[in-house]
Amino acid sequence: MGPHRNGDQVAARWQWARERLGHQFESGELLERALTHRSAGGEHNERLEFLGDSVLNFVVAARVHDRYRDAPEGDLSRFRTALVKGETLAEIAQELCLAEHLIVGPGELRSRGGASPNMLADSLEALLGAVYLDAGLDAAEQCVHRLLHGRLEALPEASSLKDAKSRLQEWLQGRGLALPRYSVETETRSPHDPQFVVVCRVAQRELEVSGQGSSRRGAEQEAAKRMLAALTDE
Amino acid sequence: MGPHRNGDQVAARWQWARERLGHQFESGELLERALTHRSAGGEHNERLEFLGDSVLNFVVAARVHDRYRDAPEGDLSRFRTALVKGETLAEIAQELCLAEHLIVGPGELRSRGGASPNMLADSLEALLGAVYLDAGLDAAEQCVHRLLHGRLEALPEASSLKDAKSRLQEWLQGRGLALPRYSVETETRSPHDPQFVVVCRVAQRELEVSGQGSSRRGAEQEAAKRMLAALTDE
Repeated sequence: MGPHRNGDQVAARWQWARERLGHQFESGELLERALTHRSAGGEHNERLEFLGDSVLNFVVAARVHDRYRDAPEGDLSRFRTALVKGETLAEIAQELCLAEHLIVGPGELRSRGGASPNMLADSLEALLGAVYLDAGLDAAEQCVHRLLHGRLEALPEASSLKDAKSRLQEWLQGRGLALPRYSVETETRSPHDPQFVVVCRVAQRELEVSGQGSSRRGAEQEAAKRMLAALTDE
Repeated sequence: MGPHRNGDQVAARWQWARERLGHQFESGELLERALTHRSAGGEHNERLEFLGDSVLNFVVAARVHDRYRDAPEGDLSRFRTALVKGETLAEIAQELCLAEHLIVGPGELRSRGGASPNMLADSLEALLGAVYLDAGLDAAEQCVHRLLHGRLEALPEASSLKDAKSRLQEWLQGRGLALPRYSVETETRSPHDPQFVVVCRVAQRELEVSGQGSSRRGAEQEAAKRMLAALTDE
């Protein structure tokens, strides 16, 4: 893998960004960094991810605020979450074939069996941070709109975006029952593969179910979903 | 309280925004809405708060990213949180005497004994959202810099901003002990005064302490802080 091959890869990434992301980078260095996972060593994309996350949040917040003029704050918040959550970003990254252009340390992909959804979502955020630094907010905004336009047009009713915890709470309150209790039973905090197990209890029905996820929030949602299923199955 | 008095109040708010917030509003209507709590009925400031929150997050993220060029992502994140958290915003709102200009429903302040820190922080975010809609991102950015400049200059070392849960985790890991467990014991979700109690357990030391707060996160941090105190006191 000499400098020639490397130069080809750099050119391929630049072309990919122009064609798929819709941004022609002035600074090839920024683009390279945005695609560099920390496992590759040297300068990686985590600072850009921090920046890109806030760019994305702002652009999407402004967009849903403008588009849904009568929606209450809670609905705006649900719309935004649906658009910027890791799952959505990972899907978009997959559609863009982003994984092909990631710069990852040797062994990293082999041990995981490919780029993880988290890695893809983080890199997409880093790319947006890089576009912002490369050409300003308007350019980043254009990328966001390009990437999210279809999903923005296809957003479902806000009520269907209510998370499982909220739905469970409403179900219980509607029946005069006490709120559920959540507790984290196990939590493994390795930087690469965090795993949470959360137990959800509804004392008055003597029910206890657990949920797993790569974040506590995710594990709670899973537990709430199962609890709802158990309650409505009764 | 006739229209004359009301007109005086509108003028006073406009002057206050110009002098204290540093923005001369084109749209008096936006300013009024930003200062209107939902208890006042009619159009209130929650949508603007949603927008302002994302403006603030973005402006501060860009600022700390630019200022701390060698800081890892985790430090940038801590700096940002220190600057945009509710406590900080409520302090700033107090320095600006924002409470004097809030439009609140009758009885709301009496029953609480004044504007709550949450109400102040939310209104400050709403004001930033209103400035953004009134005059664009640059104007909102100028307000943010004006409001946060002193605190940005005075940011402590990132390590001292580590939250109590992280410090507790590090303390335990450094001693080969298992991670603590957190569980929400009680949770009152009234829209006005949520109250959470979280219990933190360190099984190997047979310790159990609880923390309270207006969010689960806050209650967990409080519990972690007390647990650390209990452990280091042993």
